[in-house]
Amino acid sequence: MNELTILISCPDQVGLVTNITRVLAAHQLNIVAMREFVDEPNRAFFTRIACVGNVNEQEKLKQILLNNLPDNAIVNLITQLDKQIAILVTKEYHCLAEILIKNQFKTLGANVKCVIGNYEELKEFTEQLGIPYFYVSHADKDKSAFEQEMKTIINQFDIDYIVLAKFMRILSADFVKDYAGKIINIHHSFLPAFIGANPYRQAFERGVKIIGATAHFVTDNLDEGPIITQHTTHVDHNFGVKEMVRAGKEIEKKVLLEALELIFEDRIFVNRNKTIVFK
Amino acid sequence: MNELTILISCPDQVGLVTNITRVLAAHQLNIVAMREFVDEPNRAFFTRIACVGNVNEQEKLKQILLNNLPDNAIVNLITQLDKQIAILVTKEYHCLAEILIKNQFKTLGANVKCVIGNYEELKEFTEQLGIPYFYVSHADKDKSAFEQEMKTIINQFDIDYIVLAKFMRILSADFVKDYAGKIINIHHSFLPAFIGANPYRQAFERGVKIIGATAHFVTDNLDEGPIITQHTTHVDHNFGVKEMVRAGKEIEKKVLLEALELIFEDRIFVNRNKTIVFK
Amino acid sequence: MNELTILISCPDQVGLVTNITRVLAAHQLNIVAMREFVDEPNRAFFTRIACVGNVNEQEKLKQILLNNLPDNAIVNLITQLDKQIAILVTKEYHCLAEILIKNQFKTLGANVKCVIGNYEELKEFTEQLGIPYFYVSHADKDKSAFEQEMKTIINQFDIDYIVLAKFMRILSADFVKDYAGKIINIHHSFLPAFIGANPYRQAFERGVKIIGATAHFVTDNLDEGPIITQHTTHVDHNFGVKEMVRAGKEIEKKVLLEALELIFEDRIFVNRNKTIVFK
Amino acid sequence: MNELTILISCPDQVGLVTNITRVLAAHQLNIVAMREFVDEPNRAFFTRIACVGNVNEQEKLKQILLNNLPDNAIVNLITQLDKQIAILVTKEYHCLAEILIKNQFKTLGANVKCVIGNYEELKEFTEQLGIPYFYVSHADKDKSAFEQEMKTIINQFDIDYIVLAKFMRILSADFVKDYAGKIINIHHSFLPAFIGANPYRQAFERGVKIIGATAHFVTDNLDEGPIITQHTTHVDHNFGVKEMVRAGKEIEKKVLLEALELIFEDRIFVNRNKTIVFK
Repeated sequence: MNELTILISCPDQVGLVTNITRVLAAHQLNIVAMREFVDEPNRAFFTRIACVGNVNEQEKLKQILLNNLPDNAIVNLITQLDKQIAILVTKEYHCLAEILIKNQFKTLGANVKCVIGNYEELKEFTEQLGIPYFYVSHADKDKSAFEQEMKTIINQFDIDYIVLAKFMRILSADFVKDYAGKIINIHHSFLPAFIGANPYRQAFERGVKIIGATAHFVTDNLDEGPIITQHTTHVDHNFGVKEMVRAGKEIEKKVLLEALELIFEDRIFVNRNKTIVFK
Repeated sequence: MNELTILISCPDQVGLVTNITRVLAAHQLNIVAMREFVDEPNRAFFTRIACVGNVNEQEKLKQILLNNLPDNAIVNLITQLDKQIAILVTKEYHCLAEILIKNQFKTLGANVKCVIGNYEELKEFTEQLGIPYFYVSHADKDKSAFEQEMKTIINQFDIDYIVLAKFMRILSADFVKDYAGKIINIHHSFLPAFIGANPYRQAFERGVKIIGATAHFVTDNLDEGPIITQHTTHVDHNFGVKEMVRAGKEIEKKVLLEALELIFEDRIFVNRNKTIVFK
Repeated sequence: MNELTILISCPDQVGLVTNITRVLAAHQLNIVAMREFVDEPNRAFFTRIACVGNVNEQEKLKQILLNNLPDNAIVNLITQLDKQIAILVTKEYHCLAEILIKNQFKTLGANVKCVIGNYEELKEFTEQLGIPYFYVSHADKDKSAFEQEMKTIINQFDIDYIVLAKFMRILSADFVKDYAGKIINIHHSFLPAFIGANPYRQAFERGVKIIGATAHFVTDNLDEGPIITQHTTHVDHNFGVKEMVRAGKEIEKKVLLEALELIFEDRIFVNRNKTIVFK
Repeated sequence: MNELTILISCPDQVGLVTNITRVLAAHQLNIVAMREFVDEPNRAFFTRIACVGNVNEQEKLKQILLNNLPDNAIVNLITQLDKQIAILVTKEYHCLAEILIKNQFKTLGANVKCVIGNYEELKEFTEQLGIPYFYVSHADKDKSAFEQEMKTIINQFDIDYIVLAKFMRILSADFVKDYAGKIINIHHSFLPAFIGANPYRQAFERGVKIIGATAHFVTDNLDEGPIITQHTTHVDHNFGVKEMVRAGKEIEKKVLLEALELIFEDRIFVNRNKTIVFK
């Protein structure tokens, strides 16, 4: 008996759930949990089904499901347990450390294959925990050369996701396209407030009483990708920029790790510029 | 086209979702949202299905569903929009007012048919908002006479739920039995901490940094009924008992109203001494 | 023995606390609570002191304090218990109702003298609770005439604060100037995100996972006044615009009432475009 | 110019703040932040004053302050920046890792001198991060021998605080007495709910909708010491014991680290069985 997660998205129509569940029943697959969502304005259907049973021929099951669904349906059958990830960093340790600690104690739901940094600050720490660190400076080279160096490293591994754990360089459209839907970023503000650089200074100047952080998929448009998770925390007049940064870091790591957990458990669909999160 | 909510609970077995969805498809009912939960230790299955379509013979549909489910299945088809409720109060206004305001502006999801109080403090306010208030003192009579008076009033109306909105008398097992599964209470602590009277004083004496409130179904065992919703809020050393009461009241009304919203939308199953909440 | 709240703001310098407390001790005033804040970049000092004692000649005490403080110091001695307020509304009931209920049960810390609405929707409800409602339509007149009508009403009463409880007209710079520092608004978003109209639609379109609300003092710059309080709540892909509005209203009333409580207890300083909140 | 933190507790009486601030002014100490609290039922006064200036003779300043305060006053002058701590663990990594990471990157506000574990599970990880790990098994020896071994290690270092980071043995009254006021524990429930072992199983059985964690000073009475910080998080019917444990661990590390930050910044007074926290 195996666990199998099935992700399906397709145009909405009457009878989808019935069609899908009938196929699963015919394959002796018992549904443990099923979530679905209909984006009515766009007439799109999404479902995540966790089931148990014996599936010897996954490709055949997938084909039968597609035969019972509207055209343009996307079906994913997932049995793989742990994802493989690469982490990109600059100088800040807090998100990287949270990921590496969970990686070390096998509670991340993914395996960290490598860390790539455009500075050397986090090299020693990463290696202390037994993870390879690749130092790829962005200095004295153009962006495409810089990114090509990173790609060469990333492509050595069989990577499912690239996590930008406070990576402070903007990736080119080409890089993003090469790993479409696979790059997750943690943005240090409650988007869409304080887009761009220095959000904590902006928050300080504006005198807000709350700061936040946002984990999102990376797309061409900086800070505009589909949002996965967000959290906020209260601040007050006693918080200078430095205190906001400190409080913000705690939120950043919480938001990023929560997003990663959802991604690694295959609980997220990207639906145009938004996400559907089946918690 | 009508909206129909279907609640089903039964012993768990393979194929339940398929059986149910096949029946619905055969009746041209389109599933808008479906949630299910399996209590594995107790091998019990629960589902809530929201669908749209034309159902002329509900009783017949219910029978067909039962025929396709294990013995001892419970099926509820719900089309009624607003529930009818009675509210029991003592002297505190905050929960009552929150309910009556939403009732007045038709955002409660229920109709308040009457308010019964064992004091007169809230009579004028209730009547200002056009709701009948029945003063039933508990003084100088035994509990069964007191409760019989309340029952006579309640039974004049076609009541779906009785809301204890800070009603400070303990109801007898007999009363509870007469309205089994229909009585909701707001308890002024984060249960199971501070069971019993004066929870805010207990919280103050213990020096806790958080206080909370709990909405639960009322059963024979005081403060032991199935919990529906809970929230907490931070307090500190500046909070005396009075300040804790004030902060607690804000939490109480939030917790109670959230529970009522879930109940009035038929999102809750009672599963032994717990609840399943399909948000 | 009376309670006296003292608010002082002045340029920062060494020895301020000593100077102030020495004056208070000389007047047999016992300090119950004292909070201070130094805005270091702007070298400004703020303190709120709650004390008890007998002060027969407040004006004299104020003068002595001023004599012991730097030039340009501002000293407020406050013994008045309840503030007098006017409320401006349009059609939405939720913030108004929350204020009127607390007003009715004497837990607002202020007295509502009148409600002014540019529609008639909330007239009946307001009058049910015994508060005068003035209907001042903005239609068929220019803004200055509209505002003059409101001013005439407001000025009949001895108003400390004007609360915009979902008042959906933009006030002119002249109106704001006439009541400088006395107008509080609840904005239906987590500022500075989603400035302007339809923030819930903007939030829906962007696919955010959190929505919020902001209470702020009103200044010339729309949505740019000093922020008093903010809160957020989680939303997900199941929330359409309508559900976001519903969830947002709960946050709006919480944020506004929290801000009002702080204002009515004289816990807030406006410091340039920010607030200092001594909770 | 140095930063100096002054902690004072004493019986309450009129003029304390004046007396204290006059002494500080006479020593050219500028008050940056001052917080005070009066426990009125017990007539006790507490203040924390952060000031800057030159203090060459701290002992003399302390004596002058004592001379200006009631009998039994306690005065602490603190200039030491980082505390020295020992950590006691059993098998769970999450709290230990959070502390060691912050220690490594110098953001803990303390220096971890050693980790003592009654199992070997965390030895390798601790040593990877360059911190000495002492394995002291509790097996095959009586409690006093076990504790004596730990004391011998602890006393090698100049320890300010002992942090029980999920240390699952109950310490004897003697051990607690030796380090009175210096031992901080993280309890895996929202105290006083679910005192004792297996709180997550208790929470699961009761069907609560919230779980929490509590950081407290350790006293003779298990789980009854003064509470420093508490947080909660929502759970639902989908959470089995395992999921509650996982969610609980995130709360535990947040609560413990928040408590440690407050302690290391000297923001906490123990007042009988409660704490005063000057955030």
